[in-house]
Amino acid sequence: MKIGLLGHGVVGSGVRKIIDDGATWEVRELAVKRILVKDESELTDPRCTLNFDEILNDPEIEIVAECMGGLEPAHTFAKKALEKGKYVVTSNKKMLATYCEDLFETAVRNGVTVHYEASCGGGIPWMAALDRTRRVDDIDSFRGIFNGTTNYILERMKKEGKDFDEMLAEAQKLGYAERDPSDDIDGYDVKYKVSLSCVKAFDTLQDINDITTFGIRNIRREDLEYCAANSLTCKLIGTGEFHGDYISAFVIPMFLKSDDVFSNIPLNFNAIESDSKTLGAAAFVGQGAGSLPTAHAVVQNLVDIWKNQDPEINDKAVRPVDNQAHTGVYYIRTAKHAAFADIIDRNVSEHAFITKKISLMQAADACAASGDEKLFIAEVAQ
Amino acid sequence: MKIGLLGHGVVGSGVRKIIDDGATWEVRELAVKRILVKDESELTDPRCTLNFDEILNDPEIEIVAECMGGLEPAHTFAKKALEKGKYVVTSNKKMLATYCEDLFETAVRNGVTVHYEASCGGGIPWMAALDRTRRVDDIDSFRGIFNGTTNYILERMKKEGKDFDEMLAEAQKLGYAERDPSDDIDGYDVKYKVSLSCVKAFDTLQDINDITTFGIRNIRREDLEYCAANSLTCKLIGTGEFHGDYISAFVIPMFLKSDDVFSNIPLNFNAIESDSKTLGAAAFVGQGAGSLPTAHAVVQNLVDIWKNQDPEINDKAVRPVDNQAHTGVYYIRTAKHAAFADIIDRNVSEHAFITKKISLMQAADACAASGDEKLFIAEVAQ
Repeated sequence: MKIGLLGHGVVGSGVRKIIDDGATWEVRELAVKRILVKDESELTDPRCTLNFDEILNDPEIEIVAECMGGLEPAHTFAKKALEKGKYVVTSNKKMLATYCEDLFETAVRNGVTVHYEASCGGGIPWMAALDRTRRVDDIDSFRGIFNGTTNYILERMKKEGKDFDEMLAEAQKLGYAERDPSDDIDGYDVKYKVSLSCVKAFDTLQDINDITTFGIRNIRREDLEYCAANSLTCKLIGTGEFHGDYISAFVIPMFLKSDDVFSNIPLNFNAIESDSKTLGAAAFVGQGAGSLPTAHAVVQNLVDIWKNQDPEINDKAVRPVDNQAHTGVYYIRTAKHAAFADIIDRNVSEHAFITKKISLMQAADACAASGDEKLFIAEVAQ
Repeated sequence: MKIGLLGHGVVGSGVRKIIDDGATWEVRELAVKRILVKDESELTDPRCTLNFDEILNDPEIEIVAECMGGLEPAHTFAKKALEKGKYVVTSNKKMLATYCEDLFETAVRNGVTVHYEASCGGGIPWMAALDRTRRVDDIDSFRGIFNGTTNYILERMKKEGKDFDEMLAEAQKLGYAERDPSDDIDGYDVKYKVSLSCVKAFDTLQDINDITTFGIRNIRREDLEYCAANSLTCKLIGTGEFHGDYISAFVIPMFLKSDDVFSNIPLNFNAIESDSKTLGAAAFVGQGAGSLPTAHAVVQNLVDIWKNQDPEINDKAVRPVDNQAHTGVYYIRTAKHAAFADIIDRNVSEHAFITKKISLMQAADACAASGDEKLFIAEVAQ
């Protein structure tokens, strides 16, 4: 089966390598025919081209594997490929989470499918496990440490008592964090992954702007000192919950108890857990990113298409996100205490307090109303 | 697709319930037609029978799901079913690990297959993940906390400083451990699971008697005190390694470093990790046993057969186990110090020492030669 590869960077070159190496008989049924690259400096392989139309108009190419990243032109290329009746496999969580409804609708209309195992969890076979679990169970909920960069920062802050800014700089130096770290530290990367996990777990589409999202940009040593004093560990957690007519979906730092498996996930690892009626809690731990693990996930989807096995169902229901349904107890550190008078249960330091048990929506609304841009909020495990 | 269920205990009744409940369209394609039970007190459902021949000779029944446990008559019934051209799904690790070659050969000869996802890992989709990973990668090795009972005992000994005997009695009271706890505490249960994982991961059959096996029966508080003083955590680990012409496979308590994900697996949970070239280390954590999670795994195999998807390859090569290839550093506590003079690197207490770096085989031979039945051995992570 002939593949047109879009992008030849970290993930794309891994996909090319795995297919060229052909370690298994399934992989040897695949072949990369063309590779779209950005500029002439990347024309390192005779299959490389600068012209997307050479892929789009090649009837031999049945699948387009999009590993470019970014919103455009990735979205336009993916859509054009679907309109030409080509399958699309993508590792691009931001693009797919943003244009999911559009691309899925285009796929259904053209009798093909969009596959996205690599968009979430990198080397963790999370999406495939959801597909398999759902043959027997409905998924009730999932939660995950979906972002290795923030896990790395939080782990080192905890272990070494270092400041956030210093650890962020180190993560950038090691190549874990981007120059513009916003997607990681403000929780957007997790938001995209939560959105696509809801798509897969609950067969539902939702507006990503409705996913309540808090990051770790404002975390300070004193927040982790509170954790240490109370045997808690802070992790940035993405969550999805199925409630029938609606879902809850949110991203928030959580103070976890020490016997929670998630509280011991090291450095830049990811961990994701689903909960369903008969399987119960099933968790996956692995490298959440990296060239070969992510490329492995892309190639798994190519094999899925070649085998015509468990075909993706891109025909989904749109369901609203409602975070009133999720209640918790929150740790909030803010210079604007007065704005939170109604929901404070007890103060735990000069600037920080623990709320009463309230809905996530109520907590988020109070944070927004306070206008405190330096505020830090975390949910405290009960 | 009509199923004959053998056994209506913890797992069998879970299988019957999941299929009768029919939560998904895939499950609704399955139906339990007959249930073999042990005695008249179990004739609780009109489908129950005391006569296996009613299942064997029913041409409508295409699959036999064996959830009886024990070696016989489970083995004989499974073999007869295969000889009649029926597929066999089993949750019975001891029976399958013991008679794997015989049953697989019978399956191949009769054009059917044996499926065993539930035999190992209970609710952890371990076997299915191996199947999927192997579409793209060869598996290099795996290791796992395959036994929840021993993990429970070790965790409570560590946290509460309790004695082994007391914690074993408690695990028995809670129903985690059997009245005869040998399969758990002597490592046999893990040995069966390691053997079947080798079958799945490496496409290889081996003599289970060649799998070097040490349990935790002789562990004492002082061994865990040594761990605590050196920031190590003791877990009973099963390992398989692929070396081309041969494999290494063994079960031994390991003293793990505190940042190892496995050192933080709580109570009666299981954790299993595979390592392969492009996916890297991928770990799974979940309830390793229990009625519904294990039954879920049986039903997944029934769906596999119904979908005729990724059919099992029961035609395997026999490869020898060679534990010379695995080298390590070992902690040994024994009253017969003198027998180990050649391999001692340094003493760490009156009775315990750390070995030089030696092969597992050399360590095992020295233990056997010492004749000390109260000896405790663990591998120390380097």
